[in-house]
Amino acid sequence: MAERGADLYLVLLHHPVLDKNGLIVTSALTNMDIHDIARSARTYGVRRFYVAHPVKALHALAAKIMEHWDTGYGSTYNATRKDALSLVRLQHDLDSTLLTLEHETGMRPRLVVTSARPGPRRTSFATLRAQLEQTAEPHLIVLGTGWGLAPDVTERADVILEPVCGPADYNHLSVRSAAAVILDRLRGAR
Amino acid sequence: MAERGADLYLVLLHHPVLDKNGLIVTSALTNMDIHDIARSARTYGVRRFYVAHPVKALHALAAKIMEHWDTGYGSTYNATRKDALSLVRLQHDLDSTLLTLEHETGMRPRLVVTSARPGPRRTSFATLRAQLEQTAEPHLIVLGTGWGLAPDVTERADVILEPVCGPADYNHLSVRSAAAVILDRLRGAR
Repeated sequence: MAERGADLYLVLLHHPVLDKNGLIVTSALTNMDIHDIARSARTYGVRRFYVAHPVKALHALAAKIMEHWDTGYGSTYNATRKDALSLVRLQHDLDSTLLTLEHETGMRPRLVVTSARPGPRRTSFATLRAQLEQTAEPHLIVLGTGWGLAPDVTERADVILEPVCGPADYNHLSVRSAAAVILDRLRGAR
Repeated sequence: MAERGADLYLVLLHHPVLDKNGLIVTSALTNMDIHDIARSARTYGVRRFYVAHPVKALHALAAKIMEHWDTGYGSTYNATRKDALSLVRLQHDLDSTLLTLEHETGMRPRLVVTSARPGPRRTSFATLRAQLEQTAEPHLIVLGTGWGLAPDVTERADVILEPVCGPADYNHLSVRSAAAVILDRLRGAR
């Protein structure tokens, strides 16, 4: 349970995402994404971190890696990693994630889509942070791999977050870094 | 040149850092640290990202990886990566980094040490952010790998930043995620 306000959930989508040419593809599942984002999720009080990939064979690989840290040698080698990875659940796609969440919480979560691109109807971090403090409605934050989420996903959003920007005109953060900054802006200690 | 205020520099130290048992060790250089932190540095207007490792053989490896993205196949495959990696310079340790910086800027930078641990004389992010806006003095932010920077490094600090905290009691972010959050708190658009 979060300290106060809305329960936050996170999903990392590997399909449908864009490649560098704007084509819709399925991206590779990477070990580092799971580890880094799980740690950030744990730090900022996220209830569950869903890793969604449509290729079943990769679920077996991911499960193997997590087992190493959960009950294997890694569980005694690094307990903070075990702790973070306990938040991770594998999913097929956004729909299966929503279905699971609705089943678990009894509510359809508000869908918060992230994007590195500016565009219409963006919500500021300050606005969403305030909303999260004032509601009990669960929120699912959607992160994309590759060159970002396909328009099909963005169109389903209840909230599209503004891009993370620094003082420069460059905002090509890794998804791991972007996830950490997004959670810090929404839930970091102030 | 930063948009305003102090020029920021970043160094990632691989020695002296702590291992899980609190012993002083040299940690491994990882490709992902260089890529992710370079992207964050570029996003937040950092002038230079120094990667310090005492083992010369690893410099050759790192140089090879960066060459791939700078002039090799990677430079046309992903130009944003080339752009970020152009900030990276290899160094031996903190002293060689300080010497280089003093030579380049004509000033000894203010040393800002980061730590995931609470302790005495920590400076808040808000305080350092305000200071950075009001001075032209260069600042070098020191990040540690492994289980964090050795006390020898922390003792040399002009500023020790408070740990990054979320609403939970867990703050085991990866150094990649921590770097992004620290830069966002100091230089992110508000």
